[in-house]
Amino acid sequence: MVLYLIGIGLNDKKDISVKGLETVKSCDYVYLEYYTSVIVSTKEELETFYNKKIIVADRNLVESKAEETILAQAKKQKVAFLVVGDVFSATTHIDLFLRAKKKGIEVKYIPNASIMSVVGIVGLELYKYGKATSIPYPTGSFMSETAYDVIKQNKSQGLHTLCLLDIKVSEPTPENLRKGINKPEPPKFMTIKEALKILLTIENKRGENIVDANTIVIGVARLGADDFEIKSGPAFRLEKADFGEPLHSLIIPGNMHFIEQEAIEQWKIKTPQRKKNIENDE
Amino acid sequence: MVLYLIGIGLNDKKDISVKGLETVKSCDYVYLEYYTSVIVSTKEELETFYNKKIIVADRNLVESKAEETILAQAKKQKVAFLVVGDVFSATTHIDLFLRAKKKGIEVKYIPNASIMSVVGIVGLELYKYGKATSIPYPTGSFMSETAYDVIKQNKSQGLHTLCLLDIKVSEPTPENLRKGINKPEPPKFMTIKEALKILLTIENKRGENIVDANTIVIGVARLGADDFEIKSGPAFRLEKADFGEPLHSLIIPGNMHFIEQEAIEQWKIKTPQRKKNIENDE
Repeated sequence: MVLYLIGIGLNDKKDISVKGLETVKSCDYVYLEYYTSVIVSTKEELETFYNKKIIVADRNLVESKAEETILAQAKKQKVAFLVVGDVFSATTHIDLFLRAKKKGIEVKYIPNASIMSVVGIVGLELYKYGKATSIPYPTGSFMSETAYDVIKQNKSQGLHTLCLLDIKVSEPTPENLRKGINKPEPPKFMTIKEALKILLTIENKRGENIVDANTIVIGVARLGADDFEIKSGPAFRLEKADFGEPLHSLIIPGNMHFIEQEAIEQWKIKTPQRKKNIENDE
Repeated sequence: MVLYLIGIGLNDKKDISVKGLETVKSCDYVYLEYYTSVIVSTKEELETFYNKKIIVADRNLVESKAEETILAQAKKQKVAFLVVGDVFSATTHIDLFLRAKKKGIEVKYIPNASIMSVVGIVGLELYKYGKATSIPYPTGSFMSETAYDVIKQNKSQGLHTLCLLDIKVSEPTPENLRKGINKPEPPKFMTIKEALKILLTIENKRGENIVDANTIVIGVARLGADDFEIKSGPAFRLEKADFGEPLHSLIIPGNMHFIEQEAIEQWKIKTPQRKKNIENDE
């Protein structure tokens, strides 16, 4: 009958829209996609809030078993598919959308906040961001340099870069999957510290002065939540800063207008007391 | 005491988040910023829904009179400042945020959907968009070519471009303002038709084959609403298509992956019956 694709926002259960909440309450089945992002409310809290049983949808269910579950049900009944943040940031949801439409299922979309627009709070103009990129965990000895290249390209045009940091939420490792073992690993969220370490390692190797120890960067954590954290400063300082709980993202500014500079000034990381000595050390 | 900056979403009164609605209901003053975007609910509908009186904030109030209104009140009481879509897409709200913080006012941000992420529904990957741009109405004989240049730059890297189309919501003309006449003009929203006409005029002048009559473009209208419209096809066809009510935006794709191509295929504009003849005409 209908497949509702509903963004539930970035932080907790109350970030869903009024329309989204009314819709979830009216549905026969409620799926929660929980592998491309996370929020602080637990599944149980959401179930109480919606007064609905929630089926957690992992990547395997959405990508390989949607036919016999979500789509089969949506043929005859009302199915809600909840996504943390907004719906169409991840390709896999476009795919679900297309598959549902091909089956003649009506698809409705209820949007919500996404990291792509919420970073606006930092004060760098949204339309001055170039291509976004992501920084994945190195796999074995392989460290992707894509992010470094994207930052380089954006900087050459004076544009800012938003780097989304890797998330591994309860997925089996590729090694285990190959062995047929579907045992999920504990969730893992890349920190700003880890991301900067990766970028500085690549800088060290390539030496193109794209992101070095003194480059001004901006770390953001838990945007959209009350306890959000934003810090700006040279990479070597932010690499030592603690941003607390996930999710973290990293912004590499391009050329800044003076209003943008004034805006990021407010997030300037506090220098330690023994400033002089510490700077001499480095 | 507190200034709440609250995104109310893109379409109607029920797009506000549950948290946003609870917050508005708890505030002493409720401002609605209504000059950088619009939604279909009227002020009166919003007032009934919130059970609050709404003060409409025009550009003049926010940019020149915030001190003695919004900020003075937020010093002592709870003030909600509602923005259609998300809050920080427009520079002017960053400015309000900074001014409030400087005065020692606590500022809280409740995010919502923005056109910058909702375009994801089209099926072009969000992270493959380059810099966004806007297409303004020509003023007198001056037609800005910025959008054309941004599209050119993005295309050279294979990236998509989101073009936001001009909005004039109840603002006085610059001429009248200079004369001290604060009489608002009727609202005006650029259509996809008008935007394409501008781009094709620039193409005609510069001849760099950035957006010509046969370039595949995507028009989107009322994204986030039930009656949203998306059409893809050559510019000369979309220039003749009717997208209905505002808001309209225009997307110029860069290089497309086959999944992106498949996705935009579903929005392909229907060719008129007398296809052959019409094509011969052109």
